[in-house]
Amino acid sequence: MKAVVIAVGNELIFGQTVDTNSAWLADQLARRGLETVRHVAVGDSTEAIAEAIRHAAARADVVLVSGGLGPTADDLTRQGLAQALGVELQLNEACLAELEAWFSGHGRQMIPANRIQAMFPAGAEPLPNRYGTAPGIAASIGGAQVFVMPGVPHEMRGMYHGVIAPRLGSGDQVILHHVVHTFGTGESDISHRIGDLMADRSGPVMLGTTVQAGMVSIRITVQAAETEQARRAASEMAAALRSRLGALVVGEGDETMPSVVGRLLGRAGQTLATAESCTGGLVGQMITAVPGASDYYLGGVISYANQAKRRDLGVADELLAAAGAVSEPVARAMAEGCRERFASDWAVALTGIAGPAGGSDDKPVGLVYIALAGPHGSRVHRHVFPGDRPTVRCRSATAALNHLRLALQDAGPDGEP
Amino acid sequence: MKAVVIAVGNELIFGQTVDTNSAWLADQLARRGLETVRHVAVGDSTEAIAEAIRHAAARADVVLVSGGLGPTADDLTRQGLAQALGVELQLNEACLAELEAWFSGHGRQMIPANRIQAMFPAGAEPLPNRYGTAPGIAASIGGAQVFVMPGVPHEMRGMYHGVIAPRLGSGDQVILHHVVHTFGTGESDISHRIGDLMADRSGPVMLGTTVQAGMVSIRITVQAAETEQARRAASEMAAALRSRLGALVVGEGDETMPSVVGRLLGRAGQTLATAESCTGGLVGQMITAVPGASDYYLGGVISYANQAKRRDLGVADELLAAAGAVSEPVARAMAEGCRERFASDWAVALTGIAGPAGGSDDKPVGLVYIALAGPHGSRVHRHVFPGDRPTVRCRSATAALNHLRLALQDAGPDGEP
Repeated sequence: MKAVVIAVGNELIFGQTVDTNSAWLADQLARRGLETVRHVAVGDSTEAIAEAIRHAAARADVVLVSGGLGPTADDLTRQGLAQALGVELQLNEACLAELEAWFSGHGRQMIPANRIQAMFPAGAEPLPNRYGTAPGIAASIGGAQVFVMPGVPHEMRGMYHGVIAPRLGSGDQVILHHVVHTFGTGESDISHRIGDLMADRSGPVMLGTTVQAGMVSIRITVQAAETEQARRAASEMAAALRSRLGALVVGEGDETMPSVVGRLLGRAGQTLATAESCTGGLVGQMITAVPGASDYYLGGVISYANQAKRRDLGVADELLAAAGAVSEPVARAMAEGCRERFASDWAVALTGIAGPAGGSDDKPVGLVYIALAGPHGSRVHRHVFPGDRPTVRCRSATAALNHLRLALQDAGPDGEP
Repeated sequence: MKAVVIAVGNELIFGQTVDTNSAWLADQLARRGLETVRHVAVGDSTEAIAEAIRHAAARADVVLVSGGLGPTADDLTRQGLAQALGVELQLNEACLAELEAWFSGHGRQMIPANRIQAMFPAGAEPLPNRYGTAPGIAASIGGAQVFVMPGVPHEMRGMYHGVIAPRLGSGDQVILHHVVHTFGTGESDISHRIGDLMADRSGPVMLGTTVQAGMVSIRITVQAAETEQARRAASEMAAALRSRLGALVVGEGDETMPSVVGRLLGRAGQTLATAESCTGGLVGQMITAVPGASDYYLGGVISYANQAKRRDLGVADELLAAAGAVSEPVARAMAEGCRERFASDWAVALTGIAGPAGGSDDKPVGLVYIALAGPHGSRVHRHVFPGDRPTVRCRSATAALNHLRLALQDAGPDGEP
């Protein structure tokens, strides 16, 4: 089974927006054993959309289209699909009623332009959208199934999982991906450590690495005749990577640094508080992105001004004056003050220079002190992160959570080493 | 002048890597007045690459291809180009000598596999690569110029700037983009309000809308004979949009919600503090993503546990017990307590239910109270945001900053209405 993924939007083909929908969809298809043979992006033009859909439908079993279902004059995907099908658009009364209900349910007035979202190519089928106003569309061209989804990523994902995936066949081979996430060393070091495993093409398993926000992720791809066999091969390889890489391995699959930290805190029945200066709330935001974080996260202080470091964290004036806000002793005092104030088991504190301004020879941009206060005392790590302001902040936050992860892993389930 | 951008690689079409090269190239082409009409990604297959190049060359003046020039068996772009041209690959002795020199210059042994990188379709021209071993390739198919570059982004960018851009004609027309960002209403309402401007294709200006994180951005695209004329037309349209949309307009170009809030606070010489529950630090993180935020941002409290709402924000126990943590009076007390504690001019507070759990009939997932305390008192806004946990959190944070923006704009430069 072959698939083509099409993305629609002038913002994509003019290069103002990077198309992430197509990669996401291709990955989903691969998990079902469907092979994506081509991605295409076209602009907001009925003719271009129609040609792309026809071209794809002639070469693939499944065509997934995202974007161009909005209510505005430059949303032309339904018109393009109608042209590819050689039919007219027709009003669907049931969809119109649902659309009107959606607007009144959200306390908004439906304007005439939205009516277009209840129109579909004759013979095509509306697909419900749980997260927005634009229904999707299902149609057939020759032997190809064509599905059109909104371009807004969470609407597209919801529609794919909810109503499209269940209708897709599966391929003759199972293609299965599994990812092992590491933190603490570079991509070239990781590929050196697992070079023999990466080079070995004798079995059904292939390895590749990608880097994002300082985490090096190792992707395991298995092609096999059936799912059980593929799962077994993937899980054996994951075990081999874990044993090779030890504490560098943060987690696997959907796990993230904050979800792993949350799991370890939950297992230990311990709590956490945060004190952030240069990251300005980023660590708290990452921790609370995990549902259920209130089980172990008590809260934090964003001590951007020195005043807040004194008042809310009890950092002594003399310390700030003598060592400066970005220093080892101030980081330690922030973490200890935070732990005391929140009466938490653990506290992490960050103080640093994210740039672009504020650096000096002594304290360059990228210098960040990360302090960890816990049941057995406190410890400060000094880092100098390369990169621009967002990179320094992101690395700092991830490194802070990683120090906590290592401490929690060392400590074991009951907080004792 | 029309262009097609092609990216080659299994990692792209399987969705393991997001293709950022194509957006970058399309943006570069737009700056020269070349209109990209399509992006295509194909896998590591000689036939697929050849078909994509032929299809593109038949429809465009310029075809830019990235990826598949490495030395391994799955790097097949030079073979695909040769097939599209209907010629064989030939060894280029000068390139081979350069390649050998590159390896010995980097203290590495050249392995036989690298020899393929000195082979080119007969009649095609090698393009030097300043940053890696793979030369690019220039060729012509019919009237179309075809350029092939490595897939590694910095090698691709270096080759584009160094040897490809200088050979590209410029379009007979300048294409210029400008973006106006709005917040506070939906895409359909925006397009209703500016429907006549969007529909008007008589002049050189085209309008399109995109939505990201609840912000509706209006993209102004101008095609004109020369830059000054295009700039004038874009700036007249931006003025027309501002006057039509009033306070819905947040900013333009690179401006973001937090950068605009920062500019307004700076202009007024006022300060801000934050009190966050459901967003867990996201608002602080957004504010401090702007360099120089320490001029107006004092810090914040992440009051995830009720204990922190009481202790750090002075929210009364009785209030929490009677109204619940997610309520109008608690939001107000959080903002007022935060403003008092930090002695700031303004404080924003958020309390809500981000989901997926924790909702009830009375207080559904997505319910968020946003309170703003300022020099002239406090005010609470009740929202019910649709979407999943990250969407609710993101909308909440942006809406909080937007309430502050509107208050600062109303208040005028000196804080008085």
